[in-house]
Amino acid sequence: MKRALIVVSHGSRREASNDEVRRLAQLLSTHQENSFNDVSAAFLEIAEPSIPDGIAAAIERGANEVTVLPYFLSAGRHVTRDIPDEVDKARGLNADAVIRIVPYIGRAPEMADIVLRMVSDTDHEDR
Amino acid sequence: MKRALIVVSHGSRREASNDEVRRLAQLLSTHQENSFNDVSAAFLEIAEPSIPDGIAAAIERGANEVTVLPYFLSAGRHVTRDIPDEVDKARGLNADAVIRIVPYIGRAPEMADIVLRMVSDTDHEDR
Repeated sequence: MKRALIVVSHGSRREASNDEVRRLAQLLSTHQENSFNDVSAAFLEIAEPSIPDGIAAAIERGANEVTVLPYFLSAGRHVTRDIPDEVDKARGLNADAVIRIVPYIGRAPEMADIVLRMVSDTDHEDR
Repeated sequence: MKRALIVVSHGSRREASNDEVRRLAQLLSTHQENSFNDVSAAFLEIAEPSIPDGIAAAIERGANEVTVLPYFLSAGRHVTRDIPDEVDKARGLNADAVIRIVPYIGRAPEMADIVLRMVSDTDHEDR
């Protein structure tokens, strides 16, 4: 079993923003807790690769199980409809691989703690 | 000094998504680590209140220092340009209050850990 993780973001006309997501994928691939053989980024709109292309590339590199993580904070239409639609396209094109979507990152219960830590760190920087 | 925190999200046509951000603001307001007198949500587009309206409402409720947290994962144009523009509008309308923007939530270094925890939790649920 060769497992790939694909971090899916919206995609921005600001390339530096897309690069942030690519850097996160890179960071994840070398993270000590990482158990995936392959970690990459893909984008719903605007930036490359698209979700079907990103999934196809991971499969071409040898993955037979692909996990898609919607890197979104709330479950708007992109999370509830558009990403599942793109993943379904990929399933139709890659019948031999298992492709699953996990809950979007905003579901993580740590978000409130992180907000307060970010805001209070900045407090200290201000003083 | 009465301090308000405003969590700013993009805004969705899916009202359940906007409610997630409002619920986060509510959760923050009762969080034990919270030091703000007032926590609320505002939206860049589509949903209500807008950023200037949300800031004005917090000031009306008594805040004289308002912290705006962009609840975004990467620094696309919304974070780098649109939110600062809206905050500038609010500054023009509320000269007596201090209004500041802190870094967007995606800058938090914990994000990689949270991604891996979310993905591995789901692994266990699958088994």
